[in-house]
Amino acid sequence: MERVAIIGASMTQFGQREEEWITDLLAEASIECLEDAGVDTDDVDHLYVSNMTSGEFEGQTGVMNALVHDIGAMPAYTQRVDQTSASGGAGIFAAWQSVASGASDMTLLVGGEKMTHRSTSETTDIIASVTHPVEYKTGVTLPSFAGLTARHYLERFDAPRESLGKVAVKNHKNGVDNPHAQFQKEVDLETILESPIVADPLRLYDFCPITDGSAALMFCPESVAQEHTDEYAVVSGVDGATDTQVVHEREDPTVMGGVVESGEGAYEMSGLGPEDVDVAELHDMFTILEFLQMEGLGFAEQGEAWTLVEEGDTERDTGSLPTNTSGGLKSKGHPLGASGVAQGVEIYEQLVGEAGPRQVDADVGLCCNVGGFGNCVITTIMEAAK
Amino acid sequence: MERVAIIGASMTQFGQREEEWITDLLAEASIECLEDAGVDTDDVDHLYVSNMTSGEFEGQTGVMNALVHDIGAMPAYTQRVDQTSASGGAGIFAAWQSVASGASDMTLLVGGEKMTHRSTSETTDIIASVTHPVEYKTGVTLPSFAGLTARHYLERFDAPRESLGKVAVKNHKNGVDNPHAQFQKEVDLETILESPIVADPLRLYDFCPITDGSAALMFCPESVAQEHTDEYAVVSGVDGATDTQVVHEREDPTVMGGVVESGEGAYEMSGLGPEDVDVAELHDMFTILEFLQMEGLGFAEQGEAWTLVEEGDTERDTGSLPTNTSGGLKSKGHPLGASGVAQGVEIYEQLVGEAGPRQVDADVGLCCNVGGFGNCVITTIMEAAK
Repeated sequence: MERVAIIGASMTQFGQREEEWITDLLAEASIECLEDAGVDTDDVDHLYVSNMTSGEFEGQTGVMNALVHDIGAMPAYTQRVDQTSASGGAGIFAAWQSVASGASDMTLLVGGEKMTHRSTSETTDIIASVTHPVEYKTGVTLPSFAGLTARHYLERFDAPRESLGKVAVKNHKNGVDNPHAQFQKEVDLETILESPIVADPLRLYDFCPITDGSAALMFCPESVAQEHTDEYAVVSGVDGATDTQVVHEREDPTVMGGVVESGEGAYEMSGLGPEDVDVAELHDMFTILEFLQMEGLGFAEQGEAWTLVEEGDTERDTGSLPTNTSGGLKSKGHPLGASGVAQGVEIYEQLVGEAGPRQVDADVGLCCNVGGFGNCVITTIMEAAK
Repeated sequence: MERVAIIGASMTQFGQREEEWITDLLAEASIECLEDAGVDTDDVDHLYVSNMTSGEFEGQTGVMNALVHDIGAMPAYTQRVDQTSASGGAGIFAAWQSVASGASDMTLLVGGEKMTHRSTSETTDIIASVTHPVEYKTGVTLPSFAGLTARHYLERFDAPRESLGKVAVKNHKNGVDNPHAQFQKEVDLETILESPIVADPLRLYDFCPITDGSAALMFCPESVAQEHTDEYAVVSGVDGATDTQVVHEREDPTVMGGVVESGEGAYEMSGLGPEDVDVAELHDMFTILEFLQMEGLGFAEQGEAWTLVEEGDTERDTGSLPTNTSGGLKSKGHPLGASGVAQGVEIYEQLVGEAGPRQVDADVGLCCNVGGFGNCVITTIMEAAK
């Protein structure tokens, strides 16, 4: 079977986009991605929109149909892909399937969310609707799961609280060089450790922000890619996997089964292993999640990811596995449906040498997008074309 | 490339399901489909959930993750497929892609919606959120588009009002023999023509009802199907296509571009034409839509579908192209995300000889699922295995 290539990428400014609605954001990223890929709108066969919840946030559904109309892509087929906060990763999987199955020779994937116009309590209600109803009704939100997990991790593995803070320091530092990031500023460890407690032991700076934004990728068969460009990436591995919806049913709270299973699937498909990965984008919605994904994906033994962070192994310019060079969800922002696509945008740009001041030396990149509190996870491995 | 087979099907009772929520309905259809296909839950690789709007109807998102948990299918990958009222057809396309791409060897597709617990005005608001905001804010709902289109059709093609009523008579008659249909009763032409006006010239019985329900199909490669059963169907053609989101921008209000384009794609893929189709399930959300699809899919010339209905060509037991043998959306009901899957269930059962009193002689079947007012349409062609 022919390999599936990525030939273009884009992302809008992430942050508070007061003037734009979801359809504006999706159109902005789409048009930029078409230009980046050098593809005419008429040549798009399929258009997948990763979006969790425009109906709840804006009272508008059918945004994929509106987008096709707005950019004049009719009669391109379109579908909305929802896998909660991993909708972007699910979109990568869907776009890959559309090309690999032969159904489409040119698939535009656009992820986006518009969130900042709603109050914090409304936003919490909407996001918490992804959890099991019993969990939310008894007051267990996603941040509280993160706090419980972090407490358990720190005590069980004798990890210092500072190691979590250093994830935030690193990702904020990387975000300074990302012109599309919501926060382009460094934050020092002291500020993080003294910020308000949200879910003990996690504090404000252990959490990603609420964000508006959109990101896009263009997929096609490798033979078609070669007609457009010499610089492209291929998706050599992609898989998704679920864990229990009810978090307390998991045997070990520090093991995210969806991360482990999707990672194994992606490694098997690509014929690569964790030792081959040169750069990674992990789903740092909460700092503790970066540890759990490093361990679930085989970059560290269980209970040891914090030591790699302490030793600088995940630093962009000096580490052996630069992680979240984009700034991660932590600094770049987390517009739900866009985030998994934006992870792919960063890996693509690193592989084709378009990451500017964030550029690292990389032939293989990985992204891991987590839905809910690990309810479903998608892992994607990309390689620079050779 | 190996053909994609369907080896099992199920649907729940459609209607007002007061005791069940969306996750209950999805689980019910899933478990029945697993049993019908003779597949263990552990063997499911991918699980696609066609659902338009559980977040708006029930305040619960992430229903695909809840379903995987409820039926114990972890670590199966799951994603929610939304293409408005064509979410079920989009699910067929997604499930087909998952198998055809090699990503999954066993894909369970489940479509469902829970709607009847909300008031009529709330339901109208939720459904109308699929249209262009300008259309809905100026009062043009989906039923009003149907009324405008019907008036235009009847006058332009000199068709009698009774011909629309005869679509409803036929589909109600077929629904009597479908034990899962919401309405298992005949309705005579006089009752239809004297029912309350909803959107002139269309009356109450020209519209499908609001419905709770779920339906499921099991997809796998043909070689895997042959390990399970001798009786299966293959998806030999499937395609989706969009038309303008803003309905008034279309050149001809009686031509649904999405129907035409998706039909052409499905015919081309299957190597078949309209003359080869033995049985069809069309999206009769409004009676006028059955005419537009018959014409868009090449079963009738433009402006002539009504004559075929008048002549009995679409009758189940005597017609040359039995249409909506299941009872259609009109009688069976229209739980948004379930409807396209339920169309597939009927065609599958007709092809494998499990349609009971509704059975017709068929080797090739087609279903057409319409999103919004033709904003996006998916057409699927299935054949009995040979």
